[in-house]
Amino acid sequence: MAQKPSIPKGTRDFGPLEMARRNYIFNTIRQVYALYGFRQIETPAMENLSTLMGKYGEEGDKLLFKILNSGDFRHGVTAADYEALQPAQLAARYCDKGLRYDLTVPFARYVVQHRDELQMPFKRYQIQPVWRADRPQKGRYREFYQCDADVVGSDSLLNEVELMQIVDEVFTRLGIRVCIKINNRKILSGIAEVIGAADKIVDITVAIDKLDKIGLDKVNDELRATGLNEAAIERLQPIINLQGTNAEKLDVMRQALAGSEVGLKGIDEVAFVLDALAGSGLRNAIDLDLTLARGLNYYTGCIFEVKALDVQIGSITGGGRYDNLTGIFGMPGLSGVGISFGADRIYDVLDQLNLYPEAAAGGSQVLFINFGPAEAACCLRLAAQVRRAGISAEVYPDSVKMKKQMQYANATHVQHVALVGEEEMKQGLVTLKNMTTGQQQQLTPEELVAALQQA
Amino acid sequence: MAQKPSIPKGTRDFGPLEMARRNYIFNTIRQVYALYGFRQIETPAMENLSTLMGKYGEEGDKLLFKILNSGDFRHGVTAADYEALQPAQLAARYCDKGLRYDLTVPFARYVVQHRDELQMPFKRYQIQPVWRADRPQKGRYREFYQCDADVVGSDSLLNEVELMQIVDEVFTRLGIRVCIKINNRKILSGIAEVIGAADKIVDITVAIDKLDKIGLDKVNDELRATGLNEAAIERLQPIINLQGTNAEKLDVMRQALAGSEVGLKGIDEVAFVLDALAGSGLRNAIDLDLTLARGLNYYTGCIFEVKALDVQIGSITGGGRYDNLTGIFGMPGLSGVGISFGADRIYDVLDQLNLYPEAAAGGSQVLFINFGPAEAACCLRLAAQVRRAGISAEVYPDSVKMKKQMQYANATHVQHVALVGEEEMKQGLVTLKNMTTGQQQQLTPEELVAALQQA
Repeated sequence: MAQKPSIPKGTRDFGPLEMARRNYIFNTIRQVYALYGFRQIETPAMENLSTLMGKYGEEGDKLLFKILNSGDFRHGVTAADYEALQPAQLAARYCDKGLRYDLTVPFARYVVQHRDELQMPFKRYQIQPVWRADRPQKGRYREFYQCDADVVGSDSLLNEVELMQIVDEVFTRLGIRVCIKINNRKILSGIAEVIGAADKIVDITVAIDKLDKIGLDKVNDELRATGLNEAAIERLQPIINLQGTNAEKLDVMRQALAGSEVGLKGIDEVAFVLDALAGSGLRNAIDLDLTLARGLNYYTGCIFEVKALDVQIGSITGGGRYDNLTGIFGMPGLSGVGISFGADRIYDVLDQLNLYPEAAAGGSQVLFINFGPAEAACCLRLAAQVRRAGISAEVYPDSVKMKKQMQYANATHVQHVALVGEEEMKQGLVTLKNMTTGQQQQLTPEELVAALQQA
Repeated sequence: MAQKPSIPKGTRDFGPLEMARRNYIFNTIRQVYALYGFRQIETPAMENLSTLMGKYGEEGDKLLFKILNSGDFRHGVTAADYEALQPAQLAARYCDKGLRYDLTVPFARYVVQHRDELQMPFKRYQIQPVWRADRPQKGRYREFYQCDADVVGSDSLLNEVELMQIVDEVFTRLGIRVCIKINNRKILSGIAEVIGAADKIVDITVAIDKLDKIGLDKVNDELRATGLNEAAIERLQPIINLQGTNAEKLDVMRQALAGSEVGLKGIDEVAFVLDALAGSGLRNAIDLDLTLARGLNYYTGCIFEVKALDVQIGSITGGGRYDNLTGIFGMPGLSGVGISFGADRIYDVLDQLNLYPEAAAGGSQVLFINFGPAEAACCLRLAAQVRRAGISAEVYPDSVKMKKQMQYANATHVQHVALVGEEEMKQGLVTLKNMTTGQQQQLTPEELVAALQQA
């Protein structure tokens, strides 16, 4: 036999069980997005490279998968050019299209391209794969799904409130206990301002963002390395080490930032969001965390991140408000706020905590065992009857040994098997066996439907 | 403002309305597949080119989108090679990966790669996009979804029966009246055999497959052009023109094919499938059509095709049995049977017949109008309450003019708006307006939930 075929490194096949579990996650997110009035869109896997290039930094450009033009892709590139040009320059001549790298840039492109058809505020969600030519490693793939929701065209903080409710609802439905961390870019700006280092805001936040990972001493070392003087570092300490309830933290910060207009604005924004959420029955804690910074070049207002409480893993959801989604495509001043669920990490959390419900295995509710042509014909009719009641059912297609059929039932996570042998046919009965408990009962067709509906 | 960004030709953005309607189709197909015990898998968008090349004919190889290798893709290709080699040869040196062209070859690759984990029979479905560098034209795209279901590892005709039930169920749920056409490759072989032209089976079936499109005279011209003698063409006429019920046709053909073992086998297979379906309450007609041939190089047993009755459009679903899915990957003798729904055409049929249910517009069930901060806070609580009952709800995030908010409600296909002004707040009531009928009623929060649940 020939060598087994394989797939490109960093990509994955999802078999039936893994797929059923992934669908359980995606459907939960999808349903909650829809419950809050977000509407799904899809964009093409391929975008023009002019849309993608320059949007993810120099490193990002290298990580774009580029698609060779059809036909004679060499057109106009001579052998001399071929020798003179760099690979990246040549690629730009051979390729007009690339695979999307994230969902944000295609969304920005979509909004600008369809600006005349869109009703603002535009609440969209998008669940599609993205591709990155990263070096594959544990937990990092070259093809993976992103699950983004954004509201653009509204400055209202009610959008932030709804996104936090969505996060709370999704993780409650999945059974994952989380802490939602919130911060605000304006608070970080205010801090930099009051310690007299407004120009160092990026360096400072990059450093304090690492508190969880490297500890206070090393954060202070990094702050020093950015050129911050000891007085400024001193003034940062109570802020980095801030403890207490959200209300207590807000009080302390309101004092600390008294001299900074932008800082106080950030405090007000966070206070509004926390206040609105206080009455809404969140089931997970929301925690003001001043060390939370995320991608600062992008976010301009509230930022959030979600950590699982019972598993050691990076953030499983994140997001924030930005001021200029579409400026890069010539449409400035469009503000928005968004979140993104990390499906692969959520998968791992559910797996580690063993939280998948039985139904998420995706097996049929009932498999009719095949004892021969006459019995199978009878089972076909019974299967049609239970399916009309919305119950997923299969008739084993071949009348092979019972053992093989039961093996199939086990391997495909079937919940019940139904046996109709000669005796049952005569009596018009079905023997139903629960595959989990092993319990068996003899039932009429009507009782069969009822029993499966209740199961 | 800069030039509007665009997407590659032959690709599409799916906005919220189109997406909701596509989801309505995909979810219907998905639910019916699951109802019959098919389990979903997904394979990567990128496959190794060694997996894809040579599987779709010479023309197909040209239509594969190839992905430029990362880094220095020129590695080992000198300027002299560059001038000497053909574009296709160069592409093979620059690219290891390509985008999948259909779902069948990746499925075959999947089955061989995972043969040791798979429990046979393996019933899988797969709904994913495929990419072809075809010249774009009306109804033909460079990126489009396929929706395939296959059972491999079972020769039983019960699989054919279930697939026909699935077809019937899907189109019944969608409200599309269809005719299911069935034929069998063995019958076609038998015909070629009895007219003494077994070697011309492919030519004959290609010609008679065109009966619908070009008429009998031109079909006969084509048959002559294949080198068939007049006696053979004469003997074909009653077969091409066969009329009557399925039972009558089978009787006539059983006589006509009396001398052909394979032909009679084909008759028996079709008779079994039609017989099993007769008692199963199909709601659409199933029709033995001897002119149906489809891709003969691939199919070996029953073949089927679905035509919409009320719209002029090509076949909207097709499939059949094949004998050797995985031989090309070194695993011979694996038989299977499959179907594929044509989502884009089904979309057009539903569109033309105006068959989309209101809910398929994907709008929220209720939008709370925003009259100011105090009212909005009240609406946030009410929205949380209705969502707990599973009702999709939005609070308009900004307290802008009523007209603008109603415009949003209309544009996003919201089903009801809820108004909570100063007066309503005092009384603890909500005014609910049905956006279709224009009817308004004042309700308590509990009555609001009940009214929306019943709507």
